[in-house]
Amino acid sequence: MTAETTDRTLDQDLRDGRLAPASAFLNDLAPPEAAALLKQLPPKLSTIGFRLLSKGLALEVFDDLDADTQADLIGLLGSAEVAVAFEALDPEDRAELLDELPASVAKGLVRTLSPQERELTAVVLGFPRGSLGRRMSPEFIHAFTDDDAAAVLDRVRARGHQVSSIYIVPVLDRSRRLVGVVSLRDLLLAEPSATVDELAKTPIYAHADDDAETTAGRCVDRGISAMPVVDGEDRLVGVLTLDDAIEIVDAARDEDEARAGAREPLRESYLYASIFTITRSRVVWLFVLAVSAILTVNVLEIFEGTLEQKVALALFIPLLTGIGGNTGSQAATTVTRSLATGEVAPRDVGRVAGKEIRVGLTMGTALGAVGFAVASLVYGLDIGTVIGLTIVSVCTMAATVGGMMPLLAKTIRVDPAVFSTPFISTFCDATGLIIYFMIAKTVLGI
Amino acid sequence: MTAETTDRTLDQDLRDGRLAPASAFLNDLAPPEAAALLKQLPPKLSTIGFRLLSKGLALEVFDDLDADTQADLIGLLGSAEVAVAFEALDPEDRAELLDELPASVAKGLVRTLSPQERELTAVVLGFPRGSLGRRMSPEFIHAFTDDDAAAVLDRVRARGHQVSSIYIVPVLDRSRRLVGVVSLRDLLLAEPSATVDELAKTPIYAHADDDAETTAGRCVDRGISAMPVVDGEDRLVGVLTLDDAIEIVDAARDEDEARAGAREPLRESYLYASIFTITRSRVVWLFVLAVSAILTVNVLEIFEGTLEQKVALALFIPLLTGIGGNTGSQAATTVTRSLATGEVAPRDVGRVAGKEIRVGLTMGTALGAVGFAVASLVYGLDIGTVIGLTIVSVCTMAATVGGMMPLLAKTIRVDPAVFSTPFISTFCDATGLIIYFMIAKTVLGI
Repeated sequence: MTAETTDRTLDQDLRDGRLAPASAFLNDLAPPEAAALLKQLPPKLSTIGFRLLSKGLALEVFDDLDADTQADLIGLLGSAEVAVAFEALDPEDRAELLDELPASVAKGLVRTLSPQERELTAVVLGFPRGSLGRRMSPEFIHAFTDDDAAAVLDRVRARGHQVSSIYIVPVLDRSRRLVGVVSLRDLLLAEPSATVDELAKTPIYAHADDDAETTAGRCVDRGISAMPVVDGEDRLVGVLTLDDAIEIVDAARDEDEARAGAREPLRESYLYASIFTITRSRVVWLFVLAVSAILTVNVLEIFEGTLEQKVALALFIPLLTGIGGNTGSQAATTVTRSLATGEVAPRDVGRVAGKEIRVGLTMGTALGAVGFAVASLVYGLDIGTVIGLTIVSVCTMAATVGGMMPLLAKTIRVDPAVFSTPFISTFCDATGLIIYFMIAKTVLGI
Repeated sequence: MTAETTDRTLDQDLRDGRLAPASAFLNDLAPPEAAALLKQLPPKLSTIGFRLLSKGLALEVFDDLDADTQADLIGLLGSAEVAVAFEALDPEDRAELLDELPASVAKGLVRTLSPQERELTAVVLGFPRGSLGRRMSPEFIHAFTDDDAAAVLDRVRARGHQVSSIYIVPVLDRSRRLVGVVSLRDLLLAEPSATVDELAKTPIYAHADDDAETTAGRCVDRGISAMPVVDGEDRLVGVLTLDDAIEIVDAARDEDEARAGAREPLRESYLYASIFTITRSRVVWLFVLAVSAILTVNVLEIFEGTLEQKVALALFIPLLTGIGGNTGSQAATTVTRSLATGEVAPRDVGRVAGKEIRVGLTMGTALGAVGFAVASLVYGLDIGTVIGLTIVSVCTMAATVGGMMPLLAKTIRVDPAVFSTPFISTFCDATGLIIYFMIAKTVLGI
């Protein structure tokens, strides 16, 4: 029984109380790796694992955990342990954690902070949720245009311990307005007497009241290791680090992906989440979709007479709704992605509609021709004509609706992902059935 | 007509030949911002825009472009311009670009390189596509355990111009094996006489033949600014920078997202892509799905007799296939995501199946109870029973199949996203219909 602990056996070792090998394993990991493993465990096991960490490592690991796991740990650790870990967090991570905690716990924790850390936390908490100000680091090193490289490097050495990012230094004019950035690399490689003015580059920056998700996306997309954040008067108030930006973008994409798959994101590890938790993340959506799908029953009821006269029409219902649903979701996911990257904006509604109508018509014609040929051979020319015409119409309708929905969602300020794939399928199902039976009635004369 | 050029008017200005304001606008941007704008334009316009950049800026912007846009530009720029930009690229970006170019063009370009750059490029090209070695930077600064901080900083100053990453320095023992990492921050903040041995931390590293996507995901997830890459003997051969890791992860997620929406990723900006290009990215998938949906027609044909006896059964077809499709895609997207983050592996197939059967059964029972009640009230107890039982069975089947499919795909080494949502919908449609009519025949006795 001296098997070594590994990634895959950590949970079993913690569960069975084999603490010595688990401790040796965990304390040998780099902090982000230890955090990644603990984050996947159920709260009770991650608390045991966390307690096995050496003091210094524990603080770093706590900092590397996401706010959900931190909140779980806080509920299970002793208050002295919690106070130390809380004081060591960056202010922006502290603000995020506070949002996850019950108000009474949050209040108690803030009271344990040193006055300086409390003040920094207050700066971040002063910005509304969802804004960049709430996620930026309010601690930074800055340089003035007339500083020389040596002086800035000295400041980095003196204050580097306290700030999140030292690799990009914002450059300010004498009224503290942001005028540029200088990288630590350029400072190090330059002559010590070179002035910041010579080394500074055009900054990519953002405003504290900008949307955190959009700005984080820009930061990650451009690979900016730290983006200066300014207030309404262009005065520097913080920096968004690439680490934090990645976290924001990942959380947003997880949510979008979940919504596109008709569920809520799971905050716990899938394998350890209870059946109840997983069911809860899905059942509401499934229910909403099922209720809206009752629309299709109503539509079919209208055409029950037609169906009774020609039962063969029923055979093609799943095929046609499937084509509509897939075409709609193709268009919706394309436009949702382009919205997310900023390529497309709601004002482009005309251009998107124009494109999707033509794409839908092109695909519909190709697929409809095949449908017409196959169905005519097997079921006769009249059914073939109905199927061919329906495919052309359904593809055009579904592509257009699928392309418009995300823009509509964005305009009325709903998360485009919520509105997209599942709802489009249901909507296209009902509309497609109406088109199908109208065409059938006309062509077949019933 | 002295309107200033902005993000939104750049394309119009380039199209209409208003080059002076466009040039002023572009040259005032930070390189990543200029690259992001040019990347969205059609190739001809981005070439015009690129030519407006000052020489120094042009090289930086070229480096910030993705390989697709670089390949487009290379086709349109003069060979002297191309040779300069190509020489200035990082070796790993150069290897990626070469993969995008026709073999003859690629060969010609490699011939223009200086011997040193050609050798570095050969190192990267020596690793197979998709491996980490192909995407790592083969240029790095390293430290030995017995170096002192001042000596390493001197080396950074001397060689910092040539390497992609100076913020994390890999630490080697005397046989050049990786034993740790030291951050530039710690080197700067330490006493100049401190040895690297005292400052080094446990490295998070990877092997050159590891999968590039998986490793990049780990790098981004952990927020590692540069991850050392070693060969089979643990000797350092390169570093993966966070920038490159983000690029790899983004490309992979775009592809997954596209596949989940039943299309191929669009390599160009949506608004500028031609109808032909957009149609091509979708039509093959739509066609494959439509062909597999013919299965549903066949299934329904088997039950045509049952349908003729009870046409009301047709009313519920889209509702029931919709519930199945949504349940399946909920399970599939959850498991696909957990596979991507490494939480779940194909060996967990039993646990996933166990979870999904129970989740499907729970949701099916809740939704089936409602379905039974509503359908009984409107269509009578017999139809109500059929609908209720079908919903329970379809939910359980769809959740299980949806959860298994991504694991199956991973096992047979197909991209799980390809296999997931669209195919699951089609499969669940056909299977759901069989379940539905079997239950109907039994309950209704027809």
